[in-house]
Amino acid sequence: MNKDFDETPAFNTISVADDGWAINILDQTFLPHDQVTKRLTKASEGEEAISSMRVRGAPLIGVTAAYTIALAMHEDTGDQNLELTANMLIKSRPTAVNLAWAVDQMVKLLQPLEYGMRCVAAYQYAGKMAEADIATNRAIGANGLTLLEKIKKTKKKGEPINVLTHCNAGALATVGWGTATAPLYLAHRLGLNLHVWVDETRPRNQGASLTAWELQQNHVPHTVISDNAGGYLMQNGKVDICITGSDRTSSEGDVANKIGTYLKALAAHDNNIPFFVALPSSTIDWCIADGVKDIPIEKRDPEEVVWISGKTAGGKTERIRIVPQGTLAENYAFDVTPARLISGLITERGIARPSYGGLTALFPECKI
Amino acid sequence: MNKDFDETPAFNTISVADDGWAINILDQTFLPHDQVTKRLTKASEGEEAISSMRVRGAPLIGVTAAYTIALAMHEDTGDQNLELTANMLIKSRPTAVNLAWAVDQMVKLLQPLEYGMRCVAAYQYAGKMAEADIATNRAIGANGLTLLEKIKKTKKKGEPINVLTHCNAGALATVGWGTATAPLYLAHRLGLNLHVWVDETRPRNQGASLTAWELQQNHVPHTVISDNAGGYLMQNGKVDICITGSDRTSSEGDVANKIGTYLKALAAHDNNIPFFVALPSSTIDWCIADGVKDIPIEKRDPEEVVWISGKTAGGKTERIRIVPQGTLAENYAFDVTPARLISGLITERGIARPSYGGLTALFPECKI
Repeated sequence: MNKDFDETPAFNTISVADDGWAINILDQTFLPHDQVTKRLTKASEGEEAISSMRVRGAPLIGVTAAYTIALAMHEDTGDQNLELTANMLIKSRPTAVNLAWAVDQMVKLLQPLEYGMRCVAAYQYAGKMAEADIATNRAIGANGLTLLEKIKKTKKKGEPINVLTHCNAGALATVGWGTATAPLYLAHRLGLNLHVWVDETRPRNQGASLTAWELQQNHVPHTVISDNAGGYLMQNGKVDICITGSDRTSSEGDVANKIGTYLKALAAHDNNIPFFVALPSSTIDWCIADGVKDIPIEKRDPEEVVWISGKTAGGKTERIRIVPQGTLAENYAFDVTPARLISGLITERGIARPSYGGLTALFPECKI
Repeated sequence: MNKDFDETPAFNTISVADDGWAINILDQTFLPHDQVTKRLTKASEGEEAISSMRVRGAPLIGVTAAYTIALAMHEDTGDQNLELTANMLIKSRPTAVNLAWAVDQMVKLLQPLEYGMRCVAAYQYAGKMAEADIATNRAIGANGLTLLEKIKKTKKKGEPINVLTHCNAGALATVGWGTATAPLYLAHRLGLNLHVWVDETRPRNQGASLTAWELQQNHVPHTVISDNAGGYLMQNGKVDICITGSDRTSSEGDVANKIGTYLKALAAHDNNIPFFVALPSSTIDWCIADGVKDIPIEKRDPEEVVWISGKTAGGKTERIRIVPQGTLAENYAFDVTPARLISGLITERGIARPSYGGLTALFPECKI
């Protein structure tokens, strides 16, 4: 494969600034209309970037948390600051398991070190996590690509492979490639005729604003639909495969992902359409078996349902209210898709059956 | 029952103006923020009100079409005008069957009459249709109420009956009471402890803007959720029953309703939650058996997905773009829920099993 083929999609979600210590993030709250880089110089700003979803997506949250600990070490390498920062970060988003995983890794690495060594080590280790994320997603892409190549064989000339995805498990959710999008980018670069149905993904519209934006940046044909439309499309033969991401995967293959994923999995199941989840093994929570019962579901501010942001025809950013004054809203951020509705889990080591046996066949070192 | 109990919810969706011939509609495109009455004086304005969804909901569309023919007769009672108006109306919204039914009824009534008799007869007959709609919905309410009373018996003191509804099959979709909401209004007036989960209903947000508004006007406790949330709520015991409306019902009990209804029916089925559809028999299309295959699904302007309207914090109405420039969208307005996912059809004559046998047991005159 040539170099171009192996290059990650052309934007940086997170990177160390030219000064070697501040962290630049692509502030995703401005997408799709404006591409704004935000410079983080303090741990509190890293936490704010995560909790306000300036960065989001399980893998990117993990790496941002790691760099936030590096920023904390740049401020004060003391034990108390390390502990406070770690606790603050773990609380910032409760569902994604990568966050806690990344923070734990950083703390374990830094705690035994002398104070003077901690800052450099933190940046180095966070950088390694970022590189590992890119490699993991590239491997997920290669594994997922095999599914698209199989579907291609069933298609007549000129017929696109129709993929439906929910939320953004894209390059924007990671350091590079994305998880659910990695197979799509590889397939597109190989010249497969691809078309992606992008679920809008209310209430925060990550599909309409993020997935559509990054597919457009990478010239992958796509169409935005309301979250309600997927069932109709699947009933009517307009979807060949669903691929989503995962924020936390149970040891038995249940998947916590953006609210609404479960509804799409039900529709895929009802219409015999393959439903795959692309995930780095860092999203697997080996301590939880029954995901529906035991994965904690983040409840976010109802204002995210009540208000919506976008650009007027005149180019002005506006926030508008779409619910009557005085009406209440609720905002659950994730749901859990039971393993029985999932065709397979696309990991960096291969495609696993969604079960303890399936996952431990690929990750035997995690067997209890 | 006392008079108050039997009064329809306190707003007029459609009525004849004080001058005795113009038609006043509540322009629903301004809800939930502003209550604007629009005066229709020409048949073309009636058609525009239907196609632009100033009035919407299968029953209300039917009655509006009938009054639009009355307006046409007020302009010109000739055969050509009657025929042109009828054709124009039938094309204005393709999925709801009441529209074609109401237009057919009017044409059949008016065609044999002398030109001089047509105008008065048209207003009289449209008025009768409006009255019949209220009576039908009141009967649907009484039949649906029995379901809520059964659920009440399973509840501990203080526990609300949680109903989930999609789109607006409310008083705003009819001349009075609504279809899915009629049992709710009756239950609320009887003092049942009720709580309604209101699906936002993208892309036009009829739940967030219309159902929430009318439940608020009638003091029925409710919470707006994104369309993605229903699966989570059902998985977690937060929904006791789903009740939606129908835009067209096949003779075997398949239901075409607002896009996304099918996804909720799948989730209800997966969680053993009763899923009922409230419908006047005028929505039954006895000529169509397989709804999934044969009910035509309206495809609307993709701009409805791309742009969204609401009020800024400063009180200004704004329309904002939520999809990147250059990204395409598609906008299917309905999907079809197969009868196998439906617990029962709440009609004005009782609750039918969703099958040809079930429906013809209540409507034996429609047996072929």
